[in-house]
This record gives sequence, C-alpha cells and structure tokens, in this order.
Amino acid sequence: MRNIRIIGCGAAVPENTVKFGDQTRYRMTGGETLIDLAEKAAKEALEDSGIGIGDIDLIIGGMATPLQAIPCNAALIHERIAKGLSIPAFDINSSCTSFVTAFDMASFLISAGQYKTILIISGDTASAALNPNQRESYELFSDAATAFVVTACGSGSGVINSKQCTYSEGVHDTELRGGCGLLTSFAMNEKNRDDYYFDMKGGRVLRLTAKKVPVFLNDFLTETGITMDDIDYIIPHQASKALGLIMERLGVPEKKYFDRVRDWGNMISAAIPMALYTSIREGRIKRGDRIALFGTAAGLTISILYMVY
Amino acid sequence: MRNIRIIGCGAAVPENTVKFGDQTRYRMTGGETLIDLAEKAAKEALEDSGIGIGDIDLIIGGMATPLQAIPCNAALIHERIAKGLSIPAFDINSSCTSFVTAFDMASFLISAGQYKTILIISGDTASAALNPNQRESYELFSDAATAFVVTACGSGSGVINSKQCTYSEGVHDTELRGGCGLLTSFAMNEKNRDDYYFDMKGGRVLRLTAKKVPVFLNDFLTETGITMDDIDYIIPHQASKALGLIMERLGVPEKKYFDRVRDWGNMISAAIPMALYTSIREGRIKRGDRIALFGTAAGLTISILYMVY
Repeated sequence: MRNIRIIGCGAAVPENTVKFGDQTRYRMTGGETLIDLAEKAAKEALEDSGIGIGDIDLIIGGMATPLQAIPCNAALIHERIAKGLSIPAFDINSSCTSFVTAFDMASFLISAGQYKTILIISGDTASAALNPNQRESYELFSDAATAFVVTACGSGSGVINSKQCTYSEGVHDTELRGGCGLLTSFAMNEKNRDDYYFDMKGGRVLRLTAKKVPVFLNDFLTETGITMDDIDYIIPHQASKALGLIMERLGVPEKKYFDRVRDWGNMISAAIPMALYTSIREGRIKRGDRIALFGTAAGLTISILYMVY
Repeated sequence: MRNIRIIGCGAAVPENTVKFGDQTRYRMTGGETLIDLAEKAAKEALEDSGIGIGDIDLIIGGMATPLQAIPCNAALIHERIAKGLSIPAFDINSSCTSFVTAFDMASFLISAGQYKTILIISGDTASAALNPNQRESYELFSDAATAFVVTACGSGSGVINSKQCTYSEGVHDTELRGGCGLLTSFAMNEKNRDDYYFDMKGGRVLRLTAKKVPVFLNDFLTETGITMDDIDYIIPHQASKALGLIMERLGVPEKKYFDRVRDWGNMISAAIPMALYTSIREGRIKRGDRIALFGTAAGLTISILYMVY
C-alpha cells in the first residue's frame, strides 16, 4: 500500500444555476473564472486540513482543459495561493479522470519520499465551450473546482491498487478541437466554427464505454485479487444519466455508489473529487473504508484507484 | 537511485527552416502537424530501442501546449501509434520543462513497479502562435518533437536526484493567454487579438531567471551533497541566446554543457530532450556518465534532474 492520507478537501461551484427539466447545472456568469473557484476550493482544503500553504510541497493541477495555452494551470493557481513561495507546480491531464491520475501520481511521489504533502486541484468550466445546438452535451455539464490535501502517513490509509487504460478508437468521440495548436483561434471561420465548441458523440461514447468498462474492471479485479465485496463504496465519474445503467450492468447495488447527476451534471475533472468531497462531508465514507475512484474520460480512458480512506 | 534506463530515442523537425541572421529556426508549413512529428519521433524511438509498441506500458505526453483543448495530447498520439491497444496515456505539463517532469515521474512509476517500460513524447509547435510583431520571440522558437523509451533496469542507470520549483511572480512573463478556458476563441476581437499570440517579456524573464537560478541550483547541490564536479555533462533548456551568459555566471565551462541555440532556437518542451537525443547520437554522453537535465519554464518554473545515463 502506498501510504497517503487525505487530510483536507474543498469545493466550489458558481452561484448561478440553470435547470433543464429536473436537472440542475452550475454555470459561471460574466466575470467569474475557474481560477476564482479553484482558489476558493484550495483555501477550504487548506483550512480543513489545519495546515498553511507553506506546508504544501507540491501543487498538481489535475484538470481536463487548459486555462491558457501557456503556462500550466497549476502555475496560474500558484499565483493566487502561493505567490512568493517556491512550491513546484505542474499539471497532470487524463481528461475527466485527471484527479484520479493526479491522486495516483501523488501516492507514488509521497511513498517514495519525494514530497510529504501535496495539494491537488481539479476543476473545469465546460460552460466556456458548450454548443447550444448540441442539446445532449449543452444540458449535461457543470462548472466546478475541487481541492484535496494529501500527506504521508505511516499506515492505515493509502492507495492499494490502481489501473488506467486508453482506447484511442474513441479519441474523436469526445473532443474540443479548436483553440489550441492543431486548430488555432486565428483559423476560426464561419465553416469550422463548431469545431471550437465541445463536441460529444454521446451514443458512440456510451457504446464504447459499455463494451470496454466491464472488461477493464474484470481485468483489474483478476490482476489484483480484489472482489467487488472488498469495495465498501464506489466514487464514480458522474459522466451522464447513464451512470445508473452502467452500474446496474456491473452488478453494483445503488447504495454502494455515489450518483448526483441530476443535481450536478458532469463536472468534468471536478466530478469524481466533488463526489469524494461530498461523500466525506455527508459521512458516506469514514476512515478505514475501502473505496474506489472510478471513471471514464475522453480518450477513451478508463481509470480506477482502490484505496483505504 | 531510481533505476531506469533510456533504451531508445527519436526526434523529428519540420523540413522547412527560416533564417534570422545566423540563426536557423524550424517551422512547419501547411498540412504538417505536431502529431506527424510526434509519430515520427515515437517510431524512431521504438525502432532504436528494439521493442514494439506492444511492449510499452504507458505513454506520457510531456508537452507545454495542448494540441486540442480535449482530449490530452497523449491520447491523440496514441491513435497514431497504439490504436487497438489499451496502453494508458496522459499528459504532464510544466511548460518548457515538461520532459524533465515527465522523466522524473516515469522514474517513480518504474521504480515502484507500476509500469516497466514508458514512452515519453515531448514536442511543441510554437509557430502556430508566434506574433510577427514581437521580434524577440518570433525569431527565437522552433517546432520539433522528440520521444524517449525508458525501462526498468537492475542497476547502473537511473535518476539520483531531482528538484523543481515554481516562482509565480513570473507567471505572466511567458504566456499564451487566448484560445482556452479563460479567453476562448469566440472572445477574440480586434482589441484583444494579440492575446492569442504567444507573449514573452524577455527582459523580465531573464532578470527573474538570473535571480532565481543560482539560488535554486545552490539549494539543490546543498540538499543533495552533489558538487558541480560530480556532473559530467549538463543538458540545459535551449531557452535563448542568453544560455551562454547564464552558464558563465553559474561557473559552468563551455565544454560541459550543450548549446545549439544558434542552429535550433528554443524548441519549448522538445528543447531539452532534443539536446539529450543529440548528445547521445553524437557520443557526447556515454553509459555511466552522470548528467543533469536542467531548465527554466513558463511559470517561472526551474527544474533539474541528476541521473546516470
């Protein structure tokens, strides 16, 4: 086990919400930025952990989308919370599962003694690029930011196993093609304007997910010798309203996983950590529980991390 | 020592070059993309290492800029070289030092036994966003991609120490503000058009670098007990023509570091690995040599990795 412990967490959403039927979504309005939410989440996580920014040895930005093309998100957040300090800051990006990948990396860095305490910040602002003409995605996503402080511990808590796979046959099913290196802002015209919106081929994503997830999960359980009964609670990516369907197919009973898609939608890289944060705050998980962070991401990437909280 | 060994490397630049006085720069022309260069570099690295893509356990994209806002660069490259396989793929971004951060992370993952063999791909295409009116940066950068295969080894080669710091007082000195979450392509207008170009405040970068680098390096040497004499060869970021000046201030003799700024310019995240690749190909470093990867990045981030090749 890679002994690390979550000692504090924070989360922030925009005040503004919109409703689509019974579904609630959080959307930023003018003036607010993801950095504002990230700063708020980070400060809550630090206060919750009872330590100061000076005790943080590394800041990881675990996010799906860049705030700017240069520099990395973590450096931009560093300016808000750690200006004047020399804390290293870099990003880890596996799209919607960025928090899981970042958490996993943090566990390797801490267990190797490279850093003692790490601040992981995950969040995205889908609203900046949602296409009003693509109803399925337009009505699904929310803006949010989250932050977790993890630190070295002797025993008790930590990551037991993790696994991640990428299946690039699905790489064009979830995309935001425009704005960066391959299709710059200068190249936007009337014909390719839609390429600068987020684009999700929902049916294709669901079919590939339904095909790959059971195989991936079965491989993970076989390779590690873990059974579904060993997992006390699953914190899944809040990918879509199909979450319940996927979980049913995997044979996971409703009380054993977190689902708040109706109230939040898909918060991209903030979805899993927001579910984890809320599970902690609501007492759904307690110290010693064996939990699994589990999700799919644009790529198609699938990621699972099995840990003792 | 985190025992890993470089068993293969590759590099690719565009055919097209431009000259500014005695300075040569590589710039893509229409139709070519960074993914083409990355694919070419990855294939050379695999061939050089004598293994196939099926032997790769993880693909890391260690790049400063996103190809698309979604998904991550590594997934897009996965499609070119690993389609049909389930190799995990994610990005690590610390701007110009992304290769160093990715290499460091790979050493932790391999020494912990999580993965055996990792493919790291670094590259950027500055030409997509250079501002013709900002001569200093317009005449400095080149497009390139590089790839390295690293694998577990019992002894002999590996990472001895590494250190990274971010000083966010310099976070706005090197920026590409537009195109992503904080300033989308849709928000571009005549007034803010320059925000969608790369923007480097060269004088400020140089002053902060000159102030922070000596302190950073001294701290690293003090903390680790390494002396400059222990380092056989330095592979620095080819940041600018000031490289020689910085090295002179640090007391590093000319024969002990790699400098090809005149012939290549600054290749962003590909600069350090291109210098490493060339040092290997030209026989400047040999097995058993103690080398240091060393560079500055937008952030301002400074990174060093001391290893036995």
